[in-house]
Amino acid sequence: METMRIAIVAPPWFAVPPTGYGGIEWVVSYLADGLARRGHDVTLFAAGGSRTEARLVTTFPDPPSKLLGNAAVEARHVLAAYDRWREFDIIHDHTFLGPIVGAAVPVPVVHTVHGPVTPDNRGLIADLGRRLHLVAISHHQRSTLPDGVHATVIHNGIDPAAFPFSDRPGEYLLFCGRINPEKGPVQAIEIARRAGLPLLMVVKINEPIEHEYWEAEVRPRLRGLDVEVKQQPPTEEKLRAYRDALATLFPIQWPEPFGLVMIESMATGTPVIAFRNGSVPEVVQDGVTGIICEDIDAAAEAAWRAKELDRRECRRRVERHFSAALNVLRHEQLYRAILAEGGRREAAAQLPLALDAADGRTDGAGRA
Amino acid sequence: METMRIAIVAPPWFAVPPTGYGGIEWVVSYLADGLARRGHDVTLFAAGGSRTEARLVTTFPDPPSKLLGNAAVEARHVLAAYDRWREFDIIHDHTFLGPIVGAAVPVPVVHTVHGPVTPDNRGLIADLGRRLHLVAISHHQRSTLPDGVHATVIHNGIDPAAFPFSDRPGEYLLFCGRINPEKGPVQAIEIARRAGLPLLMVVKINEPIEHEYWEAEVRPRLRGLDVEVKQQPPTEEKLRAYRDALATLFPIQWPEPFGLVMIESMATGTPVIAFRNGSVPEVVQDGVTGIICEDIDAAAEAAWRAKELDRRECRRRVERHFSAALNVLRHEQLYRAILAEGGRREAAAQLPLALDAADGRTDGAGRA
Repeated sequence: METMRIAIVAPPWFAVPPTGYGGIEWVVSYLADGLARRGHDVTLFAAGGSRTEARLVTTFPDPPSKLLGNAAVEARHVLAAYDRWREFDIIHDHTFLGPIVGAAVPVPVVHTVHGPVTPDNRGLIADLGRRLHLVAISHHQRSTLPDGVHATVIHNGIDPAAFPFSDRPGEYLLFCGRINPEKGPVQAIEIARRAGLPLLMVVKINEPIEHEYWEAEVRPRLRGLDVEVKQQPPTEEKLRAYRDALATLFPIQWPEPFGLVMIESMATGTPVIAFRNGSVPEVVQDGVTGIICEDIDAAAEAAWRAKELDRRECRRRVERHFSAALNVLRHEQLYRAILAEGGRREAAAQLPLALDAADGRTDGAGRA
Repeated sequence: METMRIAIVAPPWFAVPPTGYGGIEWVVSYLADGLARRGHDVTLFAAGGSRTEARLVTTFPDPPSKLLGNAAVEARHVLAAYDRWREFDIIHDHTFLGPIVGAAVPVPVVHTVHGPVTPDNRGLIADLGRRLHLVAISHHQRSTLPDGVHATVIHNGIDPAAFPFSDRPGEYLLFCGRINPEKGPVQAIEIARRAGLPLLMVVKINEPIEHEYWEAEVRPRLRGLDVEVKQQPPTEEKLRAYRDALATLFPIQWPEPFGLVMIESMATGTPVIAFRNGSVPEVVQDGVTGIICEDIDAAAEAAWRAKELDRRECRRRVERHFSAALNVLRHEQLYRAILAEGGRREAAAQLPLALDAADGRTDGAGRA
């Protein structure tokens, strides 16, 4: 096997792996470590405090989490990475702004679209898709990309060995996630209430908007119910919360591109009661590793049937389809394919193309 | 004279020249037109609806003003420009994100820093200063750049011929600007009150924050005073407002990098009563084309002395030091110097440098 010189550009906001919340940072961590373990020469550009088996280059000694989304901060971070493009065979960029620099350097660049495709970023993703190699994190997310944009689907993965397993169904329902309308905490409470089952909520409440939603919409609904709340407990405790549940509720209210909660739960053996949205149908095997529902009543009824599901199948599904090892192999395969076909996308070699006039967002040159 | 192929990248948010508010867009407009008139092959990348004597390339048919600051929108705009880098000898970028792409293309790139240097963008400007040619719009702004960052000072300019002139002092004071604490509208009202002179306010009040400030802090202070307010009047009317004033008040509350209001006023012959801040002392010649004050009382007293100042000197100062023609010549000179010395800054040729470990924001590579 030939060694590749791979740069991985993480977002600058949190350490890799994250100490608290940070889905992208977990995915990047598994990828960088996995590629390094497979013998590649991997350089990870990430915030200070990161720990990795790759070579680490940190751009900010302290993760600038409080400036999350600040373009000047992110620009500094990605410039530090692209500065060194000559040292790499391929650059895999997980940031938002990095790819616009990546569009201008001669080394092949892969960009994983971690977030949703929105009216605001749709045009930019279309442009980047002509110049870079895009990775979508689910088939559903790929289906939302602009017409004609190519992307390789590589599902997120986790390391099942890091998750404790139990084949005995527990006796409570679990909700795990940010306190945000999109994640459906209110719906989770209502499902537990109608099912008459206890609910454990493992939640992140620290942004002002999360506090507001918690106080206004979530907390008032807990009165009189059998609900326990844990705010960002230590990892060990969170993993036990997954393992000892009857089922994890995933009443997702938006087309989430991928939901790590689903595979984390299944890795411990706990099936997922989920709403049909986004990547849910391709992650949860309906009737086998969970139950996909259309509404709250169906979910409440499904909660009672969760104990009939085979918890070993849940674990097995993660091992077979959503492991970090598989994620690493798929990326390695993608990188090799890109290098074999000469590196840059046809349209990408040093920005040779103007934006396509036919897409309706640009028009041609003309003297005014 | 040898013709240069020059790309000018305007921000995408407003048409060039702007139909309403838009200082950067005016400066860019004068520059593009002036360079084109001097025989250069100039391409202006700007929003739809722009009018220029350069070749116009529009990226968004309608200026995306409502998305002002959206990074995905700005990224699309600058990618469209850098796509065509091979067509130019030099690229002059007036956007925020463009320079990070500019850092990666082999053509020389000039970036004008139009805004203030803040803790948020300071590090990025330091990085860009190592790779690109920076233009500061005042000596004061240059003095705020990070240590060791080189920048050429080129003051903004206007076309004096477009401004009506009168050598007869008027009888009212003028305030012209956005309704924002930084611009000092409250201080202007207080100066007029203490001077016992009428005040004309030519104002922009359309952002929510401007409305709030107007209602909470400015409007209540107008009661009982001789103040007339005009909201974004037609250009002709605004120019007459300048010309017919006794003095323009510029009680600026922050170190503004440049203040177009000062040179617009002086172009019509009207001197400026200004607070000492930012670029004020290098734009207004104290005691000649205006009076620089330390506080409201001094400004109220100065207002009465304004009629002793020679209005022809005001006009002359703009013609000699702050004309668009001079601005264009200085840019032409800068471009030629850059091309003569081989184009890229030493540190800039295709991103060869990592961020300097010595600047305290980055640290070196090391195995974790």
